[in-house]
Amino acid sequence: MERIWTTELPARAGETVLLKGWLHRLRRLSSVSFLVLRDGRGTAQVVIDDPALAAELGSLPAESVLAVTGEAVAEAQAPGGVEVRRPAVEVISRAVEIPPFDLFRPRIRAHLPTVLDHAPLALRHPRNRAFFRMASAAMEGFRGSLRAHGFTEIQTPKIVGSATEGGASVFRLDYFGGPAYLSQSPQLYKQIMVGVFERVFEVGPAFRAEPHDTPRHINEFVSLDVEQGFISDHREVMATLVTALRGIIAAIAEALSPAELALTGARLPALLPVIPSIHFTEALDLLSGLTGEDLRGEPDLAPAHERLLGEWAREEHGSDFLFVTGYPTDQRAFYTAPDPARPFYSNAFDLIFRGVELVSGGERMHRYEDYLAAFARRDMGAESFAGYLEIFRHGMPPHGGFAIGLERLIMRLCELPNIREVTLFPRDMGRLTP
Amino acid sequence: MERIWTTELPARAGETVLLKGWLHRLRRLSSVSFLVLRDGRGTAQVVIDDPALAAELGSLPAESVLAVTGEAVAEAQAPGGVEVRRPAVEVISRAVEIPPFDLFRPRIRAHLPTVLDHAPLALRHPRNRAFFRMASAAMEGFRGSLRAHGFTEIQTPKIVGSATEGGASVFRLDYFGGPAYLSQSPQLYKQIMVGVFERVFEVGPAFRAEPHDTPRHINEFVSLDVEQGFISDHREVMATLVTALRGIIAAIAEALSPAELALTGARLPALLPVIPSIHFTEALDLLSGLTGEDLRGEPDLAPAHERLLGEWAREEHGSDFLFVTGYPTDQRAFYTAPDPARPFYSNAFDLIFRGVELVSGGERMHRYEDYLAAFARRDMGAESFAGYLEIFRHGMPPHGGFAIGLERLIMRLCELPNIREVTLFPRDMGRLTP
Repeated sequence: MERIWTTELPARAGETVLLKGWLHRLRRLSSVSFLVLRDGRGTAQVVIDDPALAAELGSLPAESVLAVTGEAVAEAQAPGGVEVRRPAVEVISRAVEIPPFDLFRPRIRAHLPTVLDHAPLALRHPRNRAFFRMASAAMEGFRGSLRAHGFTEIQTPKIVGSATEGGASVFRLDYFGGPAYLSQSPQLYKQIMVGVFERVFEVGPAFRAEPHDTPRHINEFVSLDVEQGFISDHREVMATLVTALRGIIAAIAEALSPAELALTGARLPALLPVIPSIHFTEALDLLSGLTGEDLRGEPDLAPAHERLLGEWAREEHGSDFLFVTGYPTDQRAFYTAPDPARPFYSNAFDLIFRGVELVSGGERMHRYEDYLAAFARRDMGAESFAGYLEIFRHGMPPHGGFAIGLERLIMRLCELPNIREVTLFPRDMGRLTP
Repeated sequence: MERIWTTELPARAGETVLLKGWLHRLRRLSSVSFLVLRDGRGTAQVVIDDPALAAELGSLPAESVLAVTGEAVAEAQAPGGVEVRRPAVEVISRAVEIPPFDLFRPRIRAHLPTVLDHAPLALRHPRNRAFFRMASAAMEGFRGSLRAHGFTEIQTPKIVGSATEGGASVFRLDYFGGPAYLSQSPQLYKQIMVGVFERVFEVGPAFRAEPHDTPRHINEFVSLDVEQGFISDHREVMATLVTALRGIIAAIAEALSPAELALTGARLPALLPVIPSIHFTEALDLLSGLTGEDLRGEPDLAPAHERLLGEWAREEHGSDFLFVTGYPTDQRAFYTAPDPARPFYSNAFDLIFRGVELVSGGERMHRYEDYLAAFARRDMGAESFAGYLEIFRHGMPPHGGFAIGLERLIMRLCELPNIREVTLFPRDMGRLTP
């Protein structure tokens, strides 16, 4: 008999079915016992009438692996409306010991460090699992929407010869006796690849040696990167970002069942046909009015200001999203293109989602002499960027792009307090295992 | 006017079109000049009748970025059957200098080290670009075929606390003052995730500090990884591998135009409904007969033997592919499941493609005590594998998987002599940039 998923059970009432999975829970009542079997997608309720079988199952630690053959019977009281009766149970793999926490409770009853120490087990909890199903769907939606718009996928090296984004926060490596570094972002490579494919994206790890021990920081994360050429300005990049976000949200809505989505606590946002956008200077004017402080001339937005802007976008435009454009050029990375009309401000943007910065992007410079000038102005050595600079000597179109942190995105969608909850095996200053 | 791709030009005869791209080549004849414009997808021929425009274009270095508006005219002699006439040309970005090699010749006329030194430019060559279009399609086909079979995508950490596959060939990292390593493979993590999703895949970088300077070795590569649970034995994993390969080949055939595919020199293989399979012991018997040497009792297959088996598969079965199963257990990684009927041999397999090993995989052990025994037998310390071993204490189903090296796959499909040609920015003992 072919094994079915527990999620297929509701459609199989009246049939004999074979399920396989883990002993999620055994509830022994006086006259009957209920086995909850968990497989890779959901759970099923199995009614155990036979006292001998109940006793045998009672001797197994939770998480033992079972095969269950029985009759699928409609039962209004059962989760999903169908349960399995008159089962034959085969023990495929007996667990050696009792788990350190119960996986059948709505939340694992342990502190986060304990949960993370036991991540290989804790990830089996349906709620935790749902976060990573969401991450999988997000990657699929990201790629699919971009491929549909003519983007090509690239995989760029993570061992690099020099720090890309700045000096201090980079991991150093012993590379056959010499120094090397872990890539902080594929920024320079994706720009190089605009010269090849014009439109590229990458999903891959990025590494930041930032010594910050906060709920928002991890030192290795998954970066969803995009870069595209022949743009008129940053607004074309913003349109691509909206396309990618639509793809992500649609893929999540399709991949997760309503029950699984509910487990994550996510509120999937609607993306308006046009996302509201505000220039940095207008944002400071607006915030000055909202706060009563004179914020004009500030170099950047504080988190409290982003929260206020998020509330304003919701009230004024009914939008969870708000673009802020035109951040001061000197506040952004060296490759940022200035606004040609007023170069003090840039063609860079942030996307604020429910009051928190979610995505950074913008137009990049594309002329060789502009890069030389930027390096000189910022006191950076051009020699570390030889291969990168070569492309600007050989013709580059106006281009731009953005990067989304996958874990940050899932954290914000699910409105979780700690990014480690949605990081598969988080790496931070104090955690390198499992 | 909306810009069209050069590949759309053949369908636009009779229309006024806007193209954008790079000055790929300018051929100045006595009465007329031909501009070949290259964009992210192909090239288009532009006829320049105006001597002043020809002179202006003649002053531009190749790779300058242009916008060309003109009439699309059917012309049997033109590549693709349509050329652009009476053009207006706008210089979007003037190249600073002449490229160190011509990109319009069928092959770049330079030695591989020079090509790799100038990779950001060399990748713009249509043949090189086609290799990476193929890689992009391969990743898409791999993921799509697996998602269609219920697999979930994961992204596992690349900074790890201990070497996964063996001690020597691992890159060491300074992690906030302590030691860490770069992941040699996601093997342990993907097994852990079988306990969560049952079926998982990952596309990501893997790092091997092997000090081998050969045409087949690079020190960072893209690994296409699969792991699945609740298998009967390794043959179910082999079936999944065939599914994935079918997806890869189909996606390549769909994504690349016939012209682009021809540039790569690839011969796309047909996958027979059933791939021939031979047990290791039978392979040694067969090879003994073919070579006249007594090879029975050999611990492994030499490359020359794989070549002979490849020829045999082609002649005997008409197949480019051959599975070899049952390699001696002690020759494989510690997690390899032995054949229950004769444990000296394993449930591991290799897939040989045109006489070269392309993929390794197999069933893994799934019982805690088997791991403890394997660690003891191999004199490995179990303490480095604490998080990994935890899953086997808490119930794991029979499972298995495989890994495909992306660059190795493309190299073999295109029958190239050096893996660096199909590695985006190769990392080897002597190369860390660009």
